[in-house]
Amino acid sequence: MSPVTMPAPTVSRTTAEKLARARGAAPQVARLSSDEKNLTLRAMAAAIKENTERILEANRADLASRDLRASSRDRLLLNPRRMDDMLGAIQAVIDLPDPVGEVLEQWTRPNGIEIRKVRVPLGVVGVIYESRPNVTVDAIVLAFKAGNAVVLRGGREAVHTNECLVEILSWNVCTGLTGGLPEGAVELLDSTSRDSVDELLRARGLVDVIVPRGGADLINRVVDTARVPVIETGAGNCHVYVDDEADLDMADRIVVNAKVSRPSVCNSAEKLLVHRGIAAGYVPRILRKLQEAGVEVRGDEETRRLASGLHVRAAEPEDWFTEYSALIIAVAVVDDLDAAIAHINRYSTSHSEAIVTRNEQRAREFLARVDSAAVYWNASTRFTDGGEFGFGAEMGISTQKLHCRGPFALKELTSIKYQVIGSGQIRG
Amino acid sequence: MSPVTMPAPTVSRTTAEKLARARGAAPQVARLSSDEKNLTLRAMAAAIKENTERILEANRADLASRDLRASSRDRLLLNPRRMDDMLGAIQAVIDLPDPVGEVLEQWTRPNGIEIRKVRVPLGVVGVIYESRPNVTVDAIVLAFKAGNAVVLRGGREAVHTNECLVEILSWNVCTGLTGGLPEGAVELLDSTSRDSVDELLRARGLVDVIVPRGGADLINRVVDTARVPVIETGAGNCHVYVDDEADLDMADRIVVNAKVSRPSVCNSAEKLLVHRGIAAGYVPRILRKLQEAGVEVRGDEETRRLASGLHVRAAEPEDWFTEYSALIIAVAVVDDLDAAIAHINRYSTSHSEAIVTRNEQRAREFLARVDSAAVYWNASTRFTDGGEFGFGAEMGISTQKLHCRGPFALKELTSIKYQVIGSGQIRG
Repeated sequence: MSPVTMPAPTVSRTTAEKLARARGAAPQVARLSSDEKNLTLRAMAAAIKENTERILEANRADLASRDLRASSRDRLLLNPRRMDDMLGAIQAVIDLPDPVGEVLEQWTRPNGIEIRKVRVPLGVVGVIYESRPNVTVDAIVLAFKAGNAVVLRGGREAVHTNECLVEILSWNVCTGLTGGLPEGAVELLDSTSRDSVDELLRARGLVDVIVPRGGADLINRVVDTARVPVIETGAGNCHVYVDDEADLDMADRIVVNAKVSRPSVCNSAEKLLVHRGIAAGYVPRILRKLQEAGVEVRGDEETRRLASGLHVRAAEPEDWFTEYSALIIAVAVVDDLDAAIAHINRYSTSHSEAIVTRNEQRAREFLARVDSAAVYWNASTRFTDGGEFGFGAEMGISTQKLHCRGPFALKELTSIKYQVIGSGQIRG
Repeated sequence: MSPVTMPAPTVSRTTAEKLARARGAAPQVARLSSDEKNLTLRAMAAAIKENTERILEANRADLASRDLRASSRDRLLLNPRRMDDMLGAIQAVIDLPDPVGEVLEQWTRPNGIEIRKVRVPLGVVGVIYESRPNVTVDAIVLAFKAGNAVVLRGGREAVHTNECLVEILSWNVCTGLTGGLPEGAVELLDSTSRDSVDELLRARGLVDVIVPRGGADLINRVVDTARVPVIETGAGNCHVYVDDEADLDMADRIVVNAKVSRPSVCNSAEKLLVHRGIAAGYVPRILRKLQEAGVEVRGDEETRRLASGLHVRAAEPEDWFTEYSALIIAVAVVDDLDAAIAHINRYSTSHSEAIVTRNEQRAREFLARVDSAAVYWNASTRFTDGGEFGFGAEMGISTQKLHCRGPFALKELTSIKYQVIGSGQIRG
């Protein structure tokens, strides 16, 4: 398994050639048994482990090659702990049951035809993403275990890391050691050209679904261009609402954790809403804690009035729509639960929102009426994550309502077909 | 319940106003109880029954107002039997369990947070369709029972029928008799302008999903224009493959039924593939039966050679891709099962395909490897239908793999949300 035997990267092929290869590979991947797929996944984990130093070196080359914002650096960075997380994700996917072939429902009609609803692979899954290299690994292993071919279009800033990872994970194709990964089952598109994104988005008949992972700009571009079905993901303008019946110590912990623990990711809180009844005491208290944690606070008029000497910039109208992905939060005082729900349903990207309260009735209202993928009562929004939900790795977090919503992984990378068995029935 | 008390139709509102009304109605529909919804559905059925003559009159006006092809006339026509089918569909939807609020999964994580995956309405469902008036009724009652507002854009040729139906079904809003249908829950867009279609397709944030029902032209236009998630439906280039181990009497019945019983609909067979081993005897036999039933036959070279004096026009390359929606069929002779599967996976719209054979092994291969929404062994493709599958009414037949595939109805008009209940958990 010496790295020197690895083939040249596939970047010399055109996008059209790569898409055709993926389409050709899809029926072959679809027919692999669970054992064949798990064997290949184990070989992938071993290959990553053996090539750790090479992967970190490629990652260092990416980190050194451009001037990145802190949040972009954090997303791009690989370190031994994140490499372990990658291996953990592969193992988690190996341990998950194979969804393909599962008979979801089965019934017989009065005329005697038997109908079975069977889970099948989607076919070719396209993923467009930015700098996080773990997405490369998660997307490959999840798509493969669900019986799909995958076409990746990673970020320009992660080009070395991604080429290295795809080379290593596809390695067993060429040696024939396991024979488990058909040629074309994993294709990496040119990350230095915008054309490859557009070609992928317009590849009707070649690609069955595209998952864009990234900020609002990427999502908007995808929605404007795509002629292939899309699962929109990720943009997270997440809210925490602190009710006047909240345990305020708990509220402190949840607000600070939701904002500070990893500000670059989509499940971080970007907005804090405080019930008017506790605002006079709670606003200065939580502002101080947030500022101690290095958070820039922007506030509505009432928040600034209550800030008692702390520096709080005025929130502009567009702040309420903004996903900062940084140590910034906007704070508003709201009259009551209804106002909090109305504010969230107006401004949110429908990703993750939390209420902190002791009042069960209000919590139930919030959980029922807030129209977001994940709604929390007395917990941090940061749990919206495939791993934290127990799905093993995740493919993304859907913020649309079609096909899947919230964190999605293996099952959501499948479709169904109806198999109908008769004995000559015709329709009257 | 005298028709004279009915309000003026809503066509004087702009598309933007109607979409905003639907968006506003969606949370109200979402909160209705099952009893409230069923009460309203019963009132709808009663209103249709009482106004039957008025509906048929509107339909006669549509039929008289333009020169229609036979297949379009058949789609547009209402008669007492089809009116009864409408009422039957409403009753079937009343009888189906309410999907909203169903807890699909529920689990507790090691950190103590409890996660519940709950079924919720999609929100606002847009439907773009052509002439079949039963779609108006099916779409309204399915969307409503699943807790959604619905925006309809029917065909220009059915304008009188659709306005009449929507008026009658929305009637109870204005009388306040049941109070079950919030204002804006059913909106009918102007069917005489193409602008209303484009506005609907671009209504991001106002509409959660659009279901286009119609031929390839409509679907292509929708795919080109839409910025809202779409469930592609309907285009059906369906195949019947007669194996050399088929019961030929059964094959006759299935082929003729699949082609002739209602040629204007999408689950009709458009192509016949015959195994070479039986072609010499079976091709002339089935051609004669098809021609006796008034079917125009087009054939590949081998079919024409075997046609023994029957008139068979040569099939052009584009014939193999074509959904005729008429009494036309194209026939090809194939070498074996593999060739049949390859032909279907190449040319089909992935709607419905059938194999007729006594050989179970080959049937299993066909069911597994043909990549279509519904695959049949020894039954007519004409069963691909929500009613025939036992779903009550149907919203359409999805030919994409995302969200739903094949006939879809109530459950597929819902999404999910995750409700997470903690006791102060934060992420480490």
